[in-house]
Amino acid sequence: MINYPNKKKSDNIKLSSSANRGMNFEAMINQTNDFYLDNDIAVIHKKPIPIQIVSVDYKMRSAAKIVEAYYKLPSTTDYNGIYKGRYIDFEAKETKTKTSFPMKNIHEHQIKHLAQVRKHGAISFIIVYFSVLGRIFFLDSDYVVSFYERSQNNRKSITIEEFEKYGHEIKEGYRKPVDYLSIIDKFYK
Amino acid sequence: MINYPNKKKSDNIKLSSSANRGMNFEAMINQTNDFYLDNDIAVIHKKPIPIQIVSVDYKMRSAAKIVEAYYKLPSTTDYNGIYKGRYIDFEAKETKTKTSFPMKNIHEHQIKHLAQVRKHGAISFIIVYFSVLGRIFFLDSDYVVSFYERSQNNRKSITIEEFEKYGHEIKEGYRKPVDYLSIIDKFYK
Repeated sequence: MINYPNKKKSDNIKLSSSANRGMNFEAMINQTNDFYLDNDIAVIHKKPIPIQIVSVDYKMRSAAKIVEAYYKLPSTTDYNGIYKGRYIDFEAKETKTKTSFPMKNIHEHQIKHLAQVRKHGAISFIIVYFSVLGRIFFLDSDYVVSFYERSQNNRKSITIEEFEKYGHEIKEGYRKPVDYLSIIDKFYK
Repeated sequence: MINYPNKKKSDNIKLSSSANRGMNFEAMINQTNDFYLDNDIAVIHKKPIPIQIVSVDYKMRSAAKIVEAYYKLPSTTDYNGIYKGRYIDFEAKETKTKTSFPMKNIHEHQIKHLAQVRKHGAISFIIVYFSVLGRIFFLDSDYVVSFYERSQNNRKSITIEEFEKYGHEIKEGYRKPVDYLSIIDKFYK
């Protein structure tokens, strides 16, 4: 992963990684999960986007066409699955800011969900991609909850320095663009 | 749970349970999961229905309206989550047949998914609701895979007798309409 501290923001956005240039973060995570699945390492999937379906046109028998629907707030995180017998649960977020990650980017019930699954034995966390900096951090849900609680009265974001201190940086790779299981191997039993 | 063997089919469909009369099976499972969640027993959610979104109308700034979308085949099962540190994964199906469950009701990639997560340490299974009989069975994914393999050359369904022999019947309840964790408590370590 290459960091371009002296370049202008407009130059940096698509240059954060030579390996994954132009690929959005969701695609990077999905490609990583595909690698894990194809190599029988873990079974972790992105959940579908929750939709409230209002009206469906059944005129064509071959394919029902949804003609009115709305996005719903997700009640859980986007990703979950199993790795070496452990339940894995996380949310992945991308931000263009360079100094901190705004807490408002994660819904309150997603933080509650991360805490709930942790209580039952999950490895739960968030992955934040600072796209301008080209840096990716893994942060355990215990810290996410703490920073969320702080945001109720104080600072409403998690700084890069806090990610460096409490989180783990994930190096970008080619076949596994966001190899977050390497962090789990290293820091979780 | 009440069984009405002598009633006509048309009478039975909505009378299979006095407790959950008229509630469809998905609602029964969801209510059970809500009970588990509210009582801090387990965190198990239904995944959203996978949708391919083709066109969205952003005219109204308050709520983006999806105006063209299609149902996609699910690539995993509908339900997963965590219970006592174990990853739980299952598919729930309802059938109106009285003698057997047709294998075609479960997609091949869902069976493959059940086998994959099992390999990594999950408790994976299907729950089948024979709505006319008012009977619910829990069947471990190892048996599901075996019956699926049989269906390639032989019988294309799992008989009630096979559910009785290899599965576990789940008794309907009021607050936990489909208390499948009771089966896990009893038969899985």
